[in-house]
Amino acid sequence: MSKEASETTDTAFAPIKWLPQGKVRFLDQTLLPNEERWIETDDYRVIGEAIRRLRVRGAPLIGIAGAYGLALAAGAGESIEAAAAELRSTRPTAVNLSWALDRCMRAVDDLVGADSVRERLTAEAIAIHQEDIAANHNIGKHGAALLGSTRVVLTHCNAGALATGGYGTALGVIRSAHKDGRVKHVYVDETRPLLQGTRLTAWELERDGIVCTVIVDSAAGSYMRRGGIDAVITGADRITANGDVANKIGTYSLAVLASENNIPFYVAAPTSTLDLSLASGDDIPIEQRSPDEITSVGSQAVAPAGVEAKNPAFDVTPNEYVTAIITENGVARPPYTASLREVCGSEVPVRG
Amino acid sequence: MSKEASETTDTAFAPIKWLPQGKVRFLDQTLLPNEERWIETDDYRVIGEAIRRLRVRGAPLIGIAGAYGLALAAGAGESIEAAAAELRSTRPTAVNLSWALDRCMRAVDDLVGADSVRERLTAEAIAIHQEDIAANHNIGKHGAALLGSTRVVLTHCNAGALATGGYGTALGVIRSAHKDGRVKHVYVDETRPLLQGTRLTAWELERDGIVCTVIVDSAAGSYMRRGGIDAVITGADRITANGDVANKIGTYSLAVLASENNIPFYVAAPTSTLDLSLASGDDIPIEQRSPDEITSVGSQAVAPAGVEAKNPAFDVTPNEYVTAIITENGVARPPYTASLREVCGSEVPVRG
Repeated sequence: MSKEASETTDTAFAPIKWLPQGKVRFLDQTLLPNEERWIETDDYRVIGEAIRRLRVRGAPLIGIAGAYGLALAAGAGESIEAAAAELRSTRPTAVNLSWALDRCMRAVDDLVGADSVRERLTAEAIAIHQEDIAANHNIGKHGAALLGSTRVVLTHCNAGALATGGYGTALGVIRSAHKDGRVKHVYVDETRPLLQGTRLTAWELERDGIVCTVIVDSAAGSYMRRGGIDAVITGADRITANGDVANKIGTYSLAVLASENNIPFYVAAPTSTLDLSLASGDDIPIEQRSPDEITSVGSQAVAPAGVEAKNPAFDVTPNEYVTAIITENGVARPPYTASLREVCGSEVPVRG
Repeated sequence: MSKEASETTDTAFAPIKWLPQGKVRFLDQTLLPNEERWIETDDYRVIGEAIRRLRVRGAPLIGIAGAYGLALAAGAGESIEAAAAELRSTRPTAVNLSWALDRCMRAVDDLVGADSVRERLTAEAIAIHQEDIAANHNIGKHGAALLGSTRVVLTHCNAGALATGGYGTALGVIRSAHKDGRVKHVYVDETRPLLQGTRLTAWELERDGIVCTVIVDSAAGSYMRRGGIDAVITGADRITANGDVANKIGTYSLAVLASENNIPFYVAAPTSTLDLSLASGDDIPIEQRSPDEITSVGSQAVAPAGVEAKNPAFDVTPNEYVTAIITENGVARPPYTASLREVCGSEVPVRG
């Protein structure tokens, strides 16, 4: 495959699609990188279950999937209020899911007739998806400019095409900077317990021909200290008014270690990830997942029977460790209370 | 089992034993916690292979195992110089292995006759083993006094009975403080890639009835920030004259995160882990292990084919992050150049 063809493929890659016959097709990300299995459904419950089980994951993507789920519910003549409630309950930390469901419900507030509700919800979901892809390309553009001559970056979890409508947030920035001939090498934290770095980010980077090296999460600090890493960049699941960032567990540690080693720590996220209704990260609900993700590997127990494990899926990075937040509307810098309102323009999101 | 009986059992537990018939019996730690398989051998090559494959691991324990290996070589009438060279080559970072082999070779420097060499090497290996157990009990005593009223500690990897001749270094301190009614709860980093925390440390703590909670390595920082952890304590694989500490990958990150959150960071190690011939941690050789430990889980690939992974087994924590180093001869505090010579007494170890 020529470089050009590959780039065309990558730019067009989306982990979820709306099909003309009123169905959704999505990639089961739990099976990557060993199997690329696509699932087609016209049942919003399958979407909800896919979000819960991380077949579909990543803050922007679960927002898009939730919106498509609502359109499926309308298409099947089911209660969209009940569907919205069920979809909303799947995962608590990323705000994009609530944001997308609220936006869709507002879009049909004034409508009567099942057909027009179905049509409007479908159009709204497709718009949310298309806008997210466009946002990511703009994040990539702003982020690449910010990275400047940065050659080696480290990232955590997966904030790529697989986590979004397409192209990616943190990986969108890396893609754009790589295309410009700058970023040459990406260190990828494996990201325990579910290995999104090893399974998903390495898969994306390899498809794009971007050189990467997978390391265990706890090696990141040591690599920073030894001087081989120019910047750290991650996505986000929710960003509060003061610039605190909820993201995959381990992000806080990376930010502290970057600060200690005088390495910039960047967060890339669309404005749909901002939650300006919350004053600080202390108010963000943190999802606790099953301890089995830690005490077993596949079907094999790795912990002694009965040992307790705790499995918070996210942590909160205080704004003081965040060098800049890259959004589709530009780069926000400290103090974030002002700069985040600015990148939102006059349209400060209202939370339901 | 009564509390007393349990304590007696734990105190007596040793992961390696010299058998009267001139054999060594050791626990294959790669199979824990699912299977407790003991291996008996009279072949030093089996000991070397066990060290290389981490069936026997932990800085003090591989020193003891190396010494027993040399005694086996002498018992079989093989060249002890060749055996020492082969055993020494198995793992480069922990200095205890070289320390023990050098000590044994010095012990037979002036001897003639195969029988007396065998006897002296056997006696020296048994002495090294017994002294290590005694050292750990003293480390426990000094460490428990240092911990004071500390209730919740976090540890990394396994610095327990399984890593030593018995009782443990960091876990020896925890055992002693727990027996005194102080330490109540231990957070255990799982310790990727080989999960020594989940598999070994949790196994030891559960046997002793000490409450523990396993977390992924990258969650440690978040738990420290949330205020639930009073101290961090780890073992060490080599400590240089200035107090820099080589230990399991991830230790550096923990030390930085502890410092950032005003939590003391303690290292527990016998003086056999000191290498005062090295000025700083920059001079310590860091073992690079197979990338397969990261790219596969069991027999299942988790990374896309062909993706690079790097797997340094250790990192170096600069002395500035180390609150104190607990040895069998007392607690060393900054500046370490002076205090570490003091805990060694006049007998500054000479390296071969």
